[in-house]
Amino acid sequence: MSAFFWQREAADGAARAGTLHTAHGPVQTPTFMPVGTAGTVKAMTADAVRSTGAGIVLGNTYHLMLRPGAERVRALGGLHRFMDWPGPILTDSGGFQVMSLGALRKLDQDGVTFASHIDGSKHRLTPERSTEIQHALDATITMCFDECPALPASVETIAASMRLSMRWAARSREAFVPREGYAQFGIVQGGVEQELRAESVRALTGIGFEGYAVGGLAVGEGQALMFSTLDTTVPLLPGDKPRYLMGVGTPDDLLGGVQRGIDMFDCVMPTRAGRTARAYTAFGTLNLRNARHAGDTRPIQDGCPCPACTRHTRAYLHHLFRADEILGPMLLTWHNLTYYQSLMRGIRTAITESRLEAHAAELRAAWAGGDPPP
Amino acid sequence: MSAFFWQREAADGAARAGTLHTAHGPVQTPTFMPVGTAGTVKAMTADAVRSTGAGIVLGNTYHLMLRPGAERVRALGGLHRFMDWPGPILTDSGGFQVMSLGALRKLDQDGVTFASHIDGSKHRLTPERSTEIQHALDATITMCFDECPALPASVETIAASMRLSMRWAARSREAFVPREGYAQFGIVQGGVEQELRAESVRALTGIGFEGYAVGGLAVGEGQALMFSTLDTTVPLLPGDKPRYLMGVGTPDDLLGGVQRGIDMFDCVMPTRAGRTARAYTAFGTLNLRNARHAGDTRPIQDGCPCPACTRHTRAYLHHLFRADEILGPMLLTWHNLTYYQSLMRGIRTAITESRLEAHAAELRAAWAGGDPPP
Repeated sequence: MSAFFWQREAADGAARAGTLHTAHGPVQTPTFMPVGTAGTVKAMTADAVRSTGAGIVLGNTYHLMLRPGAERVRALGGLHRFMDWPGPILTDSGGFQVMSLGALRKLDQDGVTFASHIDGSKHRLTPERSTEIQHALDATITMCFDECPALPASVETIAASMRLSMRWAARSREAFVPREGYAQFGIVQGGVEQELRAESVRALTGIGFEGYAVGGLAVGEGQALMFSTLDTTVPLLPGDKPRYLMGVGTPDDLLGGVQRGIDMFDCVMPTRAGRTARAYTAFGTLNLRNARHAGDTRPIQDGCPCPACTRHTRAYLHHLFRADEILGPMLLTWHNLTYYQSLMRGIRTAITESRLEAHAAELRAAWAGGDPPP
Repeated sequence: MSAFFWQREAADGAARAGTLHTAHGPVQTPTFMPVGTAGTVKAMTADAVRSTGAGIVLGNTYHLMLRPGAERVRALGGLHRFMDWPGPILTDSGGFQVMSLGALRKLDQDGVTFASHIDGSKHRLTPERSTEIQHALDATITMCFDECPALPASVETIAASMRLSMRWAARSREAFVPREGYAQFGIVQGGVEQELRAESVRALTGIGFEGYAVGGLAVGEGQALMFSTLDTTVPLLPGDKPRYLMGVGTPDDLLGGVQRGIDMFDCVMPTRAGRTARAYTAFGTLNLRNARHAGDTRPIQDGCPCPACTRHTRAYLHHLFRADEILGPMLLTWHNLTYYQSLMRGIRTAITESRLEAHAAELRAAWAGGDPPP
């Protein structure tokens, strides 16, 4: 087992290509991490997730601590064995989910007390407990427990929240048990305020983490503000550590994030869209419930290697969604994750060949061009 | 493309082992046919169905005529291509489903008018139309359109219904377009009345079909009456034609059916049970929602080759069902179909080795023995 580190292999403008080395194997970056909230990437077997080219998946502290319970997962051999994913797993800290509970949670300086969305039972998360839970889950990458205010919010609110998150980051670091090949990432907060983001970066790099995440974006501020925040924040981060943009996003968001120096992404979009008949493709999105697909013998996307495209027509997918058949979400999730992974591979190759700008222009033109006529 | 025929390869008592030769490839019998009601075996890719060892699947005239429509399926290249199942497909005639509509349908001597359960639209099925639809679907095996009264019913009701079904069988046969390697099966009716069953067999064999089904059982009469009806009915059927017991059943029903000379079965049980946390195993059934599985690191069944058993613990399956994750039904359907296919293969081998009685005793003892302690 070797150390956890990110090796830069190429750069093109601010964009970087590299490899993340972990206790559970290497991951090529930039990378998109499918979300496995409750120990499963929804509607996919672990084999199917692997077949899309995914190298690392996400788990959720909040969901797993409530069901089946962190100690249960530990007793069952950890999250890797539990969900049949021997590769790297990143777990989020539960902070974002707990904040989303609204009236069901109570924040203090020490942590958060909240009621389970499942049965109303009382629970508490602190930086220490979140870190301990992620250890019990055997997360390859542990995230700091942070607070994330919804935008828009006053600068004072954002500043106070960021500073609380920085104190919690120090406590999370203190609670983290270093293990060979494992990592803990700090999370930059500060909304869309450049000075607050810079203060947050200083606090986190002062503590020192194996990687840095940009949190508190994609929460309603819009793509332009998200990108301008990245433009000023990412250059402040250490160049030799992996950078992770949390909860993002559309294919265009991923491309823009990579162009601004981000290496890792996660988002429920491709999986959630897969369950609601929305396909991501090289030529934009398709709603497979739309009647125009009812007799269409073409695959979702020519050349896509996923089973939805190599085995079936749009007409069949349309039928499955109209008939509420489970196979619809299964096949379309498979397709969407395959598209996201192929998108990231293409971007990575373009970086290594120093042609990211041209590649990005081609991608955006194709997305804007829409579905080619039959 | 060769003719449709069933080749007997071994017999043990009334039980037979053989091969069904069809336009879409051979099927070893006895065989269990997974139900693909609306052009998909629920929660399974076609690849996954194949991996369980299934050789032939079912489609439903009633469901497919309403959505996506028989002409649509024909235009898309037939049901085989539509659902990615190049192997043999048997379609039921719609009779059973239409009869189940109760107040939504109106029966006359010519056929049945009914309202769609999807949108209330009016439709009509006759022996001719049902046969035509099954042709449009490109069914390898077409079933006669029949009427099937719920039991218990008066002998007069059952007799009148059976005789109507026999007139419809003649009209179905007239409407059937013979094609090399394709078949049409007649359906024996007559409830649990031995004389009516015999009359039905005479009527059908007088018409002449490529195979014979026993219908109108497993509709509430109980296993003992079902078996005694088979005891007197099956010996009347031609020995050189395949025999299909419709809508049956539990593992014990299948075993008893084979012991009485049945070659083919279909039932929603293993797939429906897979969606409701019920596992079929060599030692009976398990309810994976039960709390006793929450920490159980064993597979559902040792030695089972399905991914639920080779990759995951009972504890993980329990978690998936508790969390309402789609992967629960996916994995458990896979397991149940794998168990059903392995059951049929084991029975087939026992027939070819002339030890079915001993094998049956072992199977029944293991089912009755229950889940071995950890």
